[in-house]
Amino acid sequence: MSVLESLNWRYATKRMTGEKVPQEKVEAILEAARLAPTSSGLQPFSIISVSDRELLEKIKPIANNQPQITEASHLLVFAAWDDITPEQIEKVFSQTIRERNLAADALDNYKNFLIRHFGSLSREQRHNAAARQAYIAFGVAIVAAAEQKVDATPMEGFKPAELDQLLGLREKGLRSLTLLTLGYRDTANDWLHGQKKIRRPIEELVIEL
Amino acid sequence: MSVLESLNWRYATKRMTGEKVPQEKVEAILEAARLAPTSSGLQPFSIISVSDRELLEKIKPIANNQPQITEASHLLVFAAWDDITPEQIEKVFSQTIRERNLAADALDNYKNFLIRHFGSLSREQRHNAAARQAYIAFGVAIVAAAEQKVDATPMEGFKPAELDQLLGLREKGLRSLTLLTLGYRDTANDWLHGQKKIRRPIEELVIEL
Repeated sequence: MSVLESLNWRYATKRMTGEKVPQEKVEAILEAARLAPTSSGLQPFSIISVSDRELLEKIKPIANNQPQITEASHLLVFAAWDDITPEQIEKVFSQTIRERNLAADALDNYKNFLIRHFGSLSREQRHNAAARQAYIAFGVAIVAAAEQKVDATPMEGFKPAELDQLLGLREKGLRSLTLLTLGYRDTANDWLHGQKKIRRPIEELVIEL
Repeated sequence: MSVLESLNWRYATKRMTGEKVPQEKVEAILEAARLAPTSSGLQPFSIISVSDRELLEKIKPIANNQPQITEASHLLVFAAWDDITPEQIEKVFSQTIRERNLAADALDNYKNFLIRHFGSLSREQRHNAAARQAYIAFGVAIVAAAEQKVDATPMEGFKPAELDQLLGLREKGLRSLTLLTLGYRDTANDWLHGQKKIRRPIEELVIEL
């Protein structure tokens, strides 16, 4: 299925059947998110993949009791670093130097530029910069799920602070941003299934110069 | 090409050949971005597609003189709404009501919830919420370009305020976020071509619960 076919096939599934998504499909979706590009290659986020049924039951009330939370096979929580620190930047550049067999100081200029740049921002600005990168991977994961014919519901309707507490994310230096349920559409019970997809017209969305 | 093949084929192309990307490929990439899901369907952004050579020459110094700006066929500027207003929300819901033949007040509860929700945020928080949605479309566009075998370089290294001024974006209620050059890799001159792709290992990126 092409990207455009995948995007037209998918929709924000409101009811799911509870059927399990095969592990290899979940892995393909996560691998796509891993391969998504991010600014300076920092990948300043984690994805928490929740399939424990009891934990999903606890998450449901935090997400306005939306049924797809517990009808999904997996719930992916996209969580950005709460900060971008010099240590985290050092780690990313060390990996690049190691894997590309570069001289130890080959990337120092750029690395130090980044450390200075982020040092000039507030912590909230650093978190926001990290969050934007997580949304690139979120977009990529949505396309990857549709290609696998796995339904995926993007959901911002939840209480991030409560979810962070339940999953212990702040202790891990993470803040939850957005959710993606993975599962299969329950066409008989989903009011949104078969509804026309609504998007702004291309001539309104795109400005040509 | 599958999404994973596309993601492995692509890289942040630093030098491009100047060859023109056919219009139908540009349109497919923009259509993919248009079909990307966004929170409550607001699509709170625009994409400015720049192919005017003189304008690209003016943008180049704003983007640290990176050569792919003028070696690209098209430059896509992803720009988020600088605010999310009740009027903009009304417009989105009016379109849904019209296109789905709903009763005029069918979506009032949800619409009014959104207006209250965004009203409780600061203008900067509203802009940040809009920006995150634009990054979903940005991620989708990157996958769509790779599928078309079009090279696409995601670039945050530019001065947003200067670009906004050059393109008159603030008058349109927009603020530039990130760039995507579309073109073709110049393999002979691009130092990054053929280099190992560096990503955090999956067991570090993903937490299973």
